Amino acid sequence: MNVNGIHYRAIWMDGTTVCMIEQNLLPFEFKIFKAETLDDTCMAIKTMITRGAGSIGAAAAYGMYQAICTSDDEHLVENLVVAKKKIDSTRPTAVNLFYATDRVLKASKVSREFAISEAFAVADECAEAGRMIGEYGNTLIKDGFGVETHCNAGWLALVDYGSALAPIYAAQESGKEIFVYADETRPRNQGARLTAWELASAGVPHAILPDNAGAYYMSLGKINMVIVGADRIAANGDTANKIGTLEKAIAAKYYGVPFYVAAPLSTIDLSTPDGKHINIEERDEDEVLKYSGLVENGNIETFRMANPTSHAKNPAFDVTPAELITGIITEKGIVKPNELKKLF
Amino acid sequence: MNVNGIHYRAIWMDGTTVCMIEQNLLPFEFKIFKAETLDDTCMAIKTMITRGAGSIGAAAAYGMYQAICTSDDEHLVENLVVAKKKIDSTRPTAVNLFYATDRVLKASKVSREFAISEAFAVADECAEAGRMIGEYGNTLIKDGFGVETHCNAGWLALVDYGSALAPIYAAQESGKEIFVYADETRPRNQGARLTAWELASAGVPHAILPDNAGAYYMSLGKINMVIVGADRIAANGDTANKIGTLEKAIAAKYYGVPFYVAAPLSTIDLSTPDGKHINIEERDEDEVLKYSGLVENGNIETFRMANPTSHAKNPAFDVTPAELITGIITEKGIVKPNELKKLF
Repeated sequence: MNVNGIHYRAIWMDGTTVCMIEQNLLPFEFKIFKAETLDDTCMAIKTMITRGAGSIGAAAAYGMYQAICTSDDEHLVENLVVAKKKIDSTRPTAVNLFYATDRVLKASKVSREFAISEAFAVADECAEAGRMIGEYGNTLIKDGFGVETHCNAGWLALVDYGSALAPIYAAQESGKEIFVYADETRPRNQGARLTAWELASAGVPHAILPDNAGAYYMSLGKINMVIVGADRIAANGDTANKIGTLEKAIAAKYYGVPFYVAAPLSTIDLSTPDGKHINIEERDEDEVLKYSGLVENGNIETFRMANPTSHAKNPAFDVTPAELITGIITEKGIVKPNELKKLF
Repeated sequence: MNVNGIHYRAIWMDGTTVCMIEQNLLPFEFKIFKAETLDDTCMAIKTMITRGAGSIGAAAAYGMYQAICTSDDEHLVENLVVAKKKIDSTRPTAVNLFYATDRVLKASKVSREFAISEAFAVADECAEAGRMIGEYGNTLIKDGFGVETHCNAGWLALVDYGSALAPIYAAQESGKEIFVYADETRPRNQGARLTAWELASAGVPHAILPDNAGAYYMSLGKINMVIVGADRIAANGDTANKIGTLEKAIAAKYYGVPFYVAAPLSTIDLSTPDGKHINIEERDEDEVLKYSGLVENGNIETFRMANPTSHAKNPAFDVTPAELITGIITEKGIVKPNELKKLF
């Protein structure tokens, strides 16, 4: 997608350096972070310099490429086993990490060249998947629709185009008038910061909603559909995504609003039978208890918001049961959550 | 309730000055705001120096008392009509304002003395109602319960004891082990700031939850009941309360978790037939787009959190349909939402 008229992906390789848009600084500063080593890349995934299922899958694959570059042929596979372990431990919920590292590791058993080609293919395929998700998803959006989305499942999260936002961009490009309700998505505010920034950059009319207000706007009839991304989709269609997705899905069911998950096939994990088998990452309570943002001198500062003597819970994801999901939009078409196996 | 061993109400009269705990500064600073004139009192309601259905009802009644004090006998009623209009315009959703100003105005048609007595009775009755709500509500709480609450419906909001928190305090005092999940309650964070401060002051075990996480903890079976306050309850049981209450009620229904509204009778407005007739206050978008909190030098600062070129929606309340409410806890007992008329 374009930033100030220049085309960017959320993440790309430059020699042996992984370049990524520094998502912790957006929307206040547009900066490229350069991960020169595998350790840098792992740190960038862990601290969410790059984030979103597709982009961290690409980061994982590029990290494997960095490990290939520092390995001799003889020890390639065993070095990649070590690298995979390091990368897989950065964030426990997103299946795209494991998908990417598995794929490169398997290819390395064939040849170094094949491993390199697979490491680069992950990002390219992700971007192409985003484009196709946009085309399929656009068929669901009618002129005049209000669309709610949660967190950021835009091009920042998926290398290019996005998953949940791709249909919105496609609808906008095809001339439909739409209005997007972007949940702010506490505690990290990916909606208020990243989705709002993406939508504003693309000229899509939108408003930021406090997470508390989704059901209210549904009750007013303003929201015609909800589209969210996914961090992992189990074989039965249960979907792990950013905390709060579950509440929107339950509210959408109550009000009869169609609820769609948009995700590339790499997010579908047929080896996970259902949502109960998905490990939910618990993050630092300070993300809830403290706020950070841009102060007048141009610095980003952090301060305590909550009662100083209280603690907080901070689960990063929740699992939406398949029965609440109207359909899953993928690069191979739109299916019901119980029809996932058709796609493979 | 006690603060550092001294008993306080959230709001009280000292001569002709309305004294109130400055709720915008909590939990970082405990300060008393003194409203010396009716205009000060109106400003304090509008800017939420005092807040919560019961406390703003008390503020309204005390404001009427300030108007009585500056009026001669001859023009008392007409001066109180003007004062009522001024007070009623501060915040459009909470019925307690209108209840309090109506009551004092009506009494002024009998005598100045009766008007004064009614102006003082509002706060006293509210505190006593909180105590009784606690006793009735405690009968619903079992040892070991996890209880979720939204916003602040504690003693700060209800002069003393509280509505939603009163049963929790009563359960704690009667020796039950409970754990409270306090929704942070964006955008103004009354949960993370005020409810957490109240619970910590009273030694009640608790954690702050991002608003997004309620349904997730229900899905884990950690939440045995939800208790919230109310800003207005219509004749059919539909309940206006802080934005996000509706989402919790829908999620509770989905998971079979009992959902209770706790409120004094003064919050029930039989002249409003149902939720469609409740006017929802839309507040300044900056409450969503900007953050404020305590910085290192001890000052409270505000800064931009969201994308600078985006706007936000900021409805202060939503309406929970009666069908989602298990029961309404009042000072006269617990009733089903369709049985409200029994109470009068």
